[in-house]
Amino acid sequence: MCGIFAYINHLTPKARKEILAFLVNGLKRLEYRGYDSAGVAIDSPDGKDMNIVKKSGKVQALEDEITLKNDELKVDEIVSNHCGIAHTRWATHGEPNATNSHPQRSDESHAFVVIHNGIITNYKELKMFLEKKGYHFESQTDTEIIVKLVHHLYNQHPTYSFQELVEQAIQQLEGAFALCFKSRHFPGECVAARRGSPLLVGIKTKNHLSVDHIPIMYNNNKAARTVLPSLPRSESHSEFQPEEDKEIEYFFASDASAVIEHTNKVLYFEDDDVAAVKNGTLSIHRLSCSSNDPHAREITTLKMEIQQIMKGNYKYFMQKEIFEQPESVVNTMRGRLNFQNHTVTLGGIKDYIPEIKRCRRLMLIGCGTSYHSAVATRQLLEELTELPVMVELASDFLDRNTPVFRDDVCFFISQSGETADTLMALRYCKQHGALIVGVTNTVGSSICRESHCGIHINAGPEIGVASTKAYTSQFISLVMFALVLSEDRISFQKRRHDIIEALKNLADQIKEVLALDEEVKVLAQDLYQQKSLLIMGRGYNFATCLEGALKVKELTYMHSEGIMAGELKHGPLALVDDSMPVMMIIMRDPVYSKCMNALQQVVARQGRPIVICEKDDKETSEMSCKTLEVPRTVDCLQGILTVIPMQLLSYHLAVLRGCNVDCPRNLAKSVTVE
Amino acid sequence: MCGIFAYINHLTPKARKEILAFLVNGLKRLEYRGYDSAGVAIDSPDGKDMNIVKKSGKVQALEDEITLKNDELKVDEIVSNHCGIAHTRWATHGEPNATNSHPQRSDESHAFVVIHNGIITNYKELKMFLEKKGYHFESQTDTEIIVKLVHHLYNQHPTYSFQELVEQAIQQLEGAFALCFKSRHFPGECVAARRGSPLLVGIKTKNHLSVDHIPIMYNNNKAARTVLPSLPRSESHSEFQPEEDKEIEYFFASDASAVIEHTNKVLYFEDDDVAAVKNGTLSIHRLSCSSNDPHAREITTLKMEIQQIMKGNYKYFMQKEIFEQPESVVNTMRGRLNFQNHTVTLGGIKDYIPEIKRCRRLMLIGCGTSYHSAVATRQLLEELTELPVMVELASDFLDRNTPVFRDDVCFFISQSGETADTLMALRYCKQHGALIVGVTNTVGSSICRESHCGIHINAGPEIGVASTKAYTSQFISLVMFALVLSEDRISFQKRRHDIIEALKNLADQIKEVLALDEEVKVLAQDLYQQKSLLIMGRGYNFATCLEGALKVKELTYMHSEGIMAGELKHGPLALVDDSMPVMMIIMRDPVYSKCMNALQQVVARQGRPIVICEKDDKETSEMSCKTLEVPRTVDCLQGILTVIPMQLLSYHLAVLRGCNVDCPRNLAKSVTVE
Repeated sequence: MCGIFAYINHLTPKARKEILAFLVNGLKRLEYRGYDSAGVAIDSPDGKDMNIVKKSGKVQALEDEITLKNDELKVDEIVSNHCGIAHTRWATHGEPNATNSHPQRSDESHAFVVIHNGIITNYKELKMFLEKKGYHFESQTDTEIIVKLVHHLYNQHPTYSFQELVEQAIQQLEGAFALCFKSRHFPGECVAARRGSPLLVGIKTKNHLSVDHIPIMYNNNKAARTVLPSLPRSESHSEFQPEEDKEIEYFFASDASAVIEHTNKVLYFEDDDVAAVKNGTLSIHRLSCSSNDPHAREITTLKMEIQQIMKGNYKYFMQKEIFEQPESVVNTMRGRLNFQNHTVTLGGIKDYIPEIKRCRRLMLIGCGTSYHSAVATRQLLEELTELPVMVELASDFLDRNTPVFRDDVCFFISQSGETADTLMALRYCKQHGALIVGVTNTVGSSICRESHCGIHINAGPEIGVASTKAYTSQFISLVMFALVLSEDRISFQKRRHDIIEALKNLADQIKEVLALDEEVKVLAQDLYQQKSLLIMGRGYNFATCLEGALKVKELTYMHSEGIMAGELKHGPLALVDDSMPVMMIIMRDPVYSKCMNALQQVVARQGRPIVICEKDDKETSEMSCKTLEVPRTVDCLQGILTVIPMQLLSYHLAVLRGCNVDCPRNLAKSVTVE
Repeated sequence: MCGIFAYINHLTPKARKEILAFLVNGLKRLEYRGYDSAGVAIDSPDGKDMNIVKKSGKVQALEDEITLKNDELKVDEIVSNHCGIAHTRWATHGEPNATNSHPQRSDESHAFVVIHNGIITNYKELKMFLEKKGYHFESQTDTEIIVKLVHHLYNQHPTYSFQELVEQAIQQLEGAFALCFKSRHFPGECVAARRGSPLLVGIKTKNHLSVDHIPIMYNNNKAARTVLPSLPRSESHSEFQPEEDKEIEYFFASDASAVIEHTNKVLYFEDDDVAAVKNGTLSIHRLSCSSNDPHAREITTLKMEIQQIMKGNYKYFMQKEIFEQPESVVNTMRGRLNFQNHTVTLGGIKDYIPEIKRCRRLMLIGCGTSYHSAVATRQLLEELTELPVMVELASDFLDRNTPVFRDDVCFFISQSGETADTLMALRYCKQHGALIVGVTNTVGSSICRESHCGIHINAGPEIGVASTKAYTSQFISLVMFALVLSEDRISFQKRRHDIIEALKNLADQIKEVLALDEEVKVLAQDLYQQKSLLIMGRGYNFATCLEGALKVKELTYMHSEGIMAGELKHGPLALVDDSMPVMMIIMRDPVYSKCMNALQQVVARQGRPIVICEKDDKETSEMSCKTLEVPRTVDCLQGILTVIPMQLLSYHLAVLRGCNVDCPRNLAKSVTVE
């Protein structure tokens, strides 16, 4: 969570208001990462201090605050070399208020300030150490210790460079972080570092870049891991200077969407990189080099386009993303499914298929919605691979120290590719020798880079915090994997053929389901004042119940729960009476009669179920209080068509309840802390 | 669900009121199986018709109704040969009202009447057939078709014996059933049959029984499976006549608790047995005999005692069962754990240990609370067996046609040993060649009988519909299994020693936890008017969240949900504000700091969590709104101590909300239909 953004201009004169606009705009792009408070730091007009503006609430509140202070900030003055940093927060330690917002400062004179994404787990120990040294803390954050620690090191070693100070400081930190520092003592300079949380830099020059990589400077002196390092270390500088002292701009950010409107040249940092910009020169530093470490970081060119991250004619990103699904599912299949000869190719895992086929079991690991995509496809994977398939919540998987073996194949599913629990589970499985398959929507993400092979779900950027199109694309990606694994099994040819044909028609069927929007809206009007909602189903559609309930929870704050219909009689049926809202998903699949049994039980207890069923299923709709009818597809894909009415319902409920659809309270898009 | 009870007296004169009292009392013992309506059928005083009394509601309502009709029923008349049948219902088809209650009748003249436990899945087809034949149906039940079918057969074949009619009829039935028939045409006779649902008969004689088994009569004529059988079949009778035409009484019942106060001699029927009592003679019939079929059914002697199924000084069975846990856990360990030399012996699986150790994986399968006991012990099983361990909901496991292999070991966990889904999953796995281990509380239950080996949890009869002491005993049984499997692993000696020592102290620690009763009651007073309750935890205590939420759901009809604390940030955190009741379980175990993280997040969102934590854990209680402190034990057993406050809480909430603790609405103790 949290979004960090920094802007450095070198020999490119900008009005201070332009710099502030860049910073605020960068935060708006990152707002999906957290939005309970925001802040910026720029140099004061006289250059002797800093102006820090912080405000609880969304980025808009910060922008308004800046407008109020326009005179004080002297926004019309022009500066040609400057570093500004900005942050949008999702609280983990301390309530969301102005004091706990970032930037956090070392002292009242703003010797050092920092913005931080992540959690420092040993902050209590460090805080105690610094308190003994006389530091007083003003916030409840874990972040404040970082900047005070840098200040402390500066006082001890006034000759250190800015980058050396940060390098020393982060050696003391445990946990996850991406950091950008700014200092009154090093005007115009910026130092950034990461471990665990994502960070990249966008580079903008007037002409083409003359290099496509930045060399890494290793410092093979194993610096003592104490808070009081002994001596400054000798350095062999080799830096990035695109053209000798020419104009250049840098944009540090948590992800590319904040950068793309300025430049498409970006560089992704790795864990423990320390990056410094000084006099327009970017340098990357690492403490020590082992034999396999690369000697440079590549500059890559983003293919993302700016309109992909805009809302278009929709009111909310989430709504746009729901209605994008006819296209996004096609993008997921594009170039992979050949509908003429019924073949499936997944380029990203092709070379690993023989190894995967020899495995002992498949494990699918994820959190939240990604986990539900694993639940949704488990049965088909079991059927077509004839392997044991385990689905696991990443957090629980780690808590249990689950046994993992060399002949396991482990899938890690995450839209952002940065979900902390999923990433840690990946590392755990990798350490145990398993084959690692990443299923992400974000090229260049940590999961992407640390997997042996993977499937990019190709759903396009997803901005709404509640995942919608990523779910259906994850679903299809896993279905395609099952198809690839069963391609040489004669006995499955009919089944594979049916599934591929169904995938061909899926986009049109999704359009049909989206046409239910008005009907769903009317339904939402009946439901939106309720406190609870139970969503029941089983078999292939159980995942829809879990996912639908999660959507309702996160967007509407109604207490909704997905219930395995087979478990009704073991407890949940007690909740059913004429006042408890119940939805059921009943398709003409192999569990149809069991679902009808559940429906009868609910009706016998005076329940008034709203049923998602197949088009023209009279028998089912006669027993229901209300129905939403979706077209029929093959059983194992039906979950894609049944989840969409639930996405629409949660959307309309949220709007009716006056909730912010794209920024549900307490949540963030990408959960990059444990 | 549903409880069935029949009483036949032969040469044992009884007043009609005694017979009625026996029937009503039998139903009361079976009431935990269903209690939404009840009914009895006895002969009319003139012997030419029947008296059927049916009443919606609990058995007490039926008893009151009978009292009102005492005169009409001529309760003081004495009969020496008679058959009466009685039923307590849990509705599956049709609302719980008098018409849908059992006994169901063939016609207004009561030619045949039947009581039924189970579900007939092909009732629609049969109903259509019978309607064509001119039958009119008065109820919405699936049961009514059974008795009308028998009547139809009788009209076709007036020479058939009662037992032959039933035998023909059940060949047409699909689904699950236990049935008892009575007929005006066969006075004093009773015919019973089962498939899928449990059925036994208790036998009471004045003197000792002279035989210990009943021969089975096979009819190897493969009778045509049509509704119109061609010819009556020849019979080679070999019947049970304890002593030539001496006084004898029979008690057919769904389970032994209804019989034990009359006799401890019982015989359990197998699927497709048809039992007939005529002139005091019990005979058992089967359609065909294959080479492996036994030639007789054994009469067994029950060791259960009547006081074991009485409430004692407690207000409710559930309350009694919660407070019995210091003894019931000791009973589970008795004779198995040797605290001197730290050894564990499980007699029921001893011979299978080498085979189990060679297996590829362990699967734990159950429903409801039993499933939670698997969740609770999964991590320890993974740790001590170093095998992959899968836990599965029986219904979902069946829906998915989960791949099962010959080298799998499958555990089936069910208090009653009759849970339909669990039993069907057992049969599915057996068919696939897996080793079957039963974990039940009921000797002689179907799961017991169909397993290769098993662990009897020895918790004593559990009457409260909400399972409490069975859960803790299942938990300990699975822990003991993990201990057995790791006994020769040197590296686990310290761990095993710690666990065994902790088991030794468990009963005393449970007493300490039960002493929180008053404190929990005060807490319940704050909570009982709430609509929702979230219960959060992770690691070893996640199962407590699930089980606690289930208890609250089934007893109080509040919408409670167990939430994996690691998933908070992926959605459920949106529900948290100052008005949403939240409970958390935070123990000083390996996930303590992660749980504290979750606690901080909840507090940062204005949540006011009630925390179950360790005794004297100041750090945790300072951050909590309220705490319940339980003593510390080894991490993998802590779930036993944390679940008890949740049991107590659900009990007190239910009492405060005016709910019937032992008979929650819509639920039954033993779910013997899918």
